[in-house]
Amino acid sequence: MDRELAIGLDLGGTNIKGILLDSDGNIYTNTDIPTEAGDGPESVARRMAGMISVLEQAAKKAGRKATGVGIGIPGLPDQGTGDVVFAPNLGWKNVPLLKLLTTTVTLPVILENDANTAALGEQWLGAGRGSANMIMITIGTGIGGGLILNGKLYTGANGSAGEIGHTVINPQGPPCSCGRRGCLETYTSATAMIRMAREAIEQGKKTCLTSKDKIEARDIVTAALQGDETSAGIVDFAAQYLGIGIANMINILNPDKVVVGGGVAGAGDILFEPLISSVRQWSLEANVDAVKIVPAQLGNNAGCIGAASLALKQKGTSDI
Amino acid sequence: MDRELAIGLDLGGTNIKGILLDSDGNIYTNTDIPTEAGDGPESVARRMAGMISVLEQAAKKAGRKATGVGIGIPGLPDQGTGDVVFAPNLGWKNVPLLKLLTTTVTLPVILENDANTAALGEQWLGAGRGSANMIMITIGTGIGGGLILNGKLYTGANGSAGEIGHTVINPQGPPCSCGRRGCLETYTSATAMIRMAREAIEQGKKTCLTSKDKIEARDIVTAALQGDETSAGIVDFAAQYLGIGIANMINILNPDKVVVGGGVAGAGDILFEPLISSVRQWSLEANVDAVKIVPAQLGNNAGCIGAASLALKQKGTSDI
Repeated sequence: MDRELAIGLDLGGTNIKGILLDSDGNIYTNTDIPTEAGDGPESVARRMAGMISVLEQAAKKAGRKATGVGIGIPGLPDQGTGDVVFAPNLGWKNVPLLKLLTTTVTLPVILENDANTAALGEQWLGAGRGSANMIMITIGTGIGGGLILNGKLYTGANGSAGEIGHTVINPQGPPCSCGRRGCLETYTSATAMIRMAREAIEQGKKTCLTSKDKIEARDIVTAALQGDETSAGIVDFAAQYLGIGIANMINILNPDKVVVGGGVAGAGDILFEPLISSVRQWSLEANVDAVKIVPAQLGNNAGCIGAASLALKQKGTSDI
Repeated sequence: MDRELAIGLDLGGTNIKGILLDSDGNIYTNTDIPTEAGDGPESVARRMAGMISVLEQAAKKAGRKATGVGIGIPGLPDQGTGDVVFAPNLGWKNVPLLKLLTTTVTLPVILENDANTAALGEQWLGAGRGSANMIMITIGTGIGGGLILNGKLYTGANGSAGEIGHTVINPQGPPCSCGRRGCLETYTSATAMIRMAREAIEQGKKTCLTSKDKIEARDIVTAALQGDETSAGIVDFAAQYLGIGIANMINILNPDKVVVGGGVAGAGDILFEPLISSVRQWSLEANVDAVKIVPAQLGNNAGCIGAASLALKQKGTSDI
């Protein structure tokens, strides 16, 4: 029997990505449309349903059948009701996404947090292949985390596990978007790096970033790679603190792998060298000896690949 | 058929505790001998073997049969070889404990870290009953942690998970016994509280502790309960920081229960009120709403009860 195919969607603040793949991880189709979150949840759900229909057709054209849909959402799903409890980037609170989708979608649909789907994707086909205890950390506007423990996605009592970005590294630290102080993401997210760059410019530090109208994290990384000392200092500082946050996770969870993803992770050695040295400094020896810290491999595709893997697992057609 | 019995041992720096129980949690015998760690591992192993033999006899006298032994050790076991990789309190490094025991013990023996056995004990018969995702925190000389995730003990890649005491709360904080700075246990262990009491006395603060030759953590708790303001301040400070450490665990692991054990946990409301308020302040709402923070119930027996439960699980005679 031909292996069945699964559809994975990754619902982001800007784009909805979709993928069609089989249980060997062969990708049949990749697609991408704008989210247009401003049009409201009903409209977004219609766009998602449209994408699912397109991917179902693609499966048919390949002479196969898609048997399920996994969706990564930027927030907290209630897997019992199929509601999105909250998704701050979309401005969603208690949106009945599953109900909205199933007016037209007939395939079984499963929702999961997008940091978790990214972790599943990297563990299945990316940097976490073969890992039984893996922590995935995604550095973006904030810092997201997904946990694979004893070979399975771990989501906790109500699906909110993995909030690594809001572990407190210093209770007297900078204010965080969550209302607290000194959370990891106030030191080491894209947002934190941009804040540090602005502060450096205000303090009159020499940097090529001064010429930019709008600074993005990738500009800081690029400038650092080109030898801009202020930018290199910011990347180094962020790496040092990320190392402390990761060391805390390593001391608690004793993983065999930590996968670091998100745009900033593309910085390469200027990020990973101080990061790994900081992790070594702040972790217990037995724990740090057991772990490898590696960059993510699947980029923006990790989320929809992991979402599709959930659909395959739910169908029980695969032992991935 | 009569249910089989299991033997649980808890190897501590001062005492070895032993217990004989059945898979319903009925306790048949409790026993206790000094460890005499100074006599060396061979001697300690002989004393343990003697205790196991006594408990086997007790089972026979009850007309039953002990079918396995679980042992909690204050360090890291290698479950493949049965060695104790290290146990700082005993001064042990690479001690072949299982080999030493099996010269006389014929029952199957399983080793586990003692923070983990305590977690198993509280989850089975104590404050964590019915909990699927539980964190056990033990406040003693240091701070130990054991994790029950998805209903099972989680030990990580090489058995070193749960090192909550060495998560960094402030990289500029006080020096820790592990060589780093600002670990949770520099703020909130018995050792930390005693250090703070000494500092307060040196600074000339008014406290009834001044009259003590040697201050112990229980003295500080007792003084605080009797209205000594300096002592109350120390307990409050320790509770605040413990709250931050627990909040970090809650944000990462989204447990349904946190069980706080160890001598200091007996302080009651003067510890738990500021602790819970600090946890509420530093945890994300969805995560803190899912969790109960409770004192341990089994006291010093948690470890050997949990160790015995491991022996029962290994035999497969029980679904605990």
